[in-house]
Amino acid sequence: MEYGSETLASLVKQFARMPGVGLKTAQRLALYLLRSKPEDVERLGTLVLELKDKVGFCQVCGSITEDEKCAICKDTSRNTETICVVEQPQDVLVLEKTGEYRGLYHVLHGVLSPIDGVGPDNINLAALEERVRKDKVKEVIIATNPSVEGDTTALYIAKALESGGCTVTRLARGLPVGGSLEFADEVTLARAIERREKL
Amino acid sequence: MEYGSETLASLVKQFARMPGVGLKTAQRLALYLLRSKPEDVERLGTLVLELKDKVGFCQVCGSITEDEKCAICKDTSRNTETICVVEQPQDVLVLEKTGEYRGLYHVLHGVLSPIDGVGPDNINLAALEERVRKDKVKEVIIATNPSVEGDTTALYIAKALESGGCTVTRLARGLPVGGSLEFADEVTLARAIERREKL
Repeated sequence: MEYGSETLASLVKQFARMPGVGLKTAQRLALYLLRSKPEDVERLGTLVLELKDKVGFCQVCGSITEDEKCAICKDTSRNTETICVVEQPQDVLVLEKTGEYRGLYHVLHGVLSPIDGVGPDNINLAALEERVRKDKVKEVIIATNPSVEGDTTALYIAKALESGGCTVTRLARGLPVGGSLEFADEVTLARAIERREKL
Repeated sequence: MEYGSETLASLVKQFARMPGVGLKTAQRLALYLLRSKPEDVERLGTLVLELKDKVGFCQVCGSITEDEKCAICKDTSRNTETICVVEQPQDVLVLEKTGEYRGLYHVLHGVLSPIDGVGPDNINLAALEERVRKDKVKEVIIATNPSVEGDTTALYIAKALESGGCTVTRLARGLPVGGSLEFADEVTLARAIERREKL
């Protein structure tokens, strides 16, 4: 009865389970809903329930969709000979925003991380190998994060696809556009010198 | 179709309306739910809908409750001659945690703020005056925040209750316990000197 209502207390607890939401924030959110217009609260509750029932992942690439296949996989104007491999569904959104890429995607839903017990069977990898084999893919662009796990995963995928006859590339590392040398970390800077491009 | 799902896009928008939640955070929360166990997501959605239907405010004091009267107003062991006036329902929770106070509460659901167009009629004030008149209240402790609006509201309430024959007090201002002089702001420090207590 800490909050004067079991429902409110449970809602605070449920909010607090979400990433980056502490108990104070959870309480603030729940109390905000209590003061909100009933139709807004109903809309939020309904959407959360609908999310569970309607939204899932594309059976081909693992992107977010409400159907079996996502909009990108269904789009016949996309270049089916290139697959861009990303860690999470939100990475697809970011890459699509650049407008630079016209190929397909493959979402791993994770990265290899032996410390956390995540091996090749725990991420969406077997499906990628099958797609590359079946769909005459010419290039696989690996766009995992530039982190230790992302790099490990990239190397693992490159090795696994070696015999398939397709080119495997990785997003370029270097200075971020609009950044300044002064604030670049040494590793990035060293990499930028090493991989310098001819003008 | 930015998110590959209308439902997901709407949920992100709805999350982003909550205080302190930006678009990036809203997206993170929605994608977290997408990866969560279905039963957890269902629980959250159901709780949000239940909040709207079941949880409201006490008809006497304005605290959070699922009934007509809140647990504190119903508790016959509480001292009914004292009313502590607070701005928001969460302030009741904080004060209850101290275990120091055994009287009743009154939640204003706001503070006087002429700039924002909040006058005496826009907060839960008339009900307080009626309670004081009817229930033989001996002391009203004003526990609005130590801010300009909180102080204004406190003065207004003191004036409004003047003729009622009850004592009106305000929470003490001074140095926070466990704090150090070095980090106290000047206004607080000046107040602490002015209101110094005899040892």
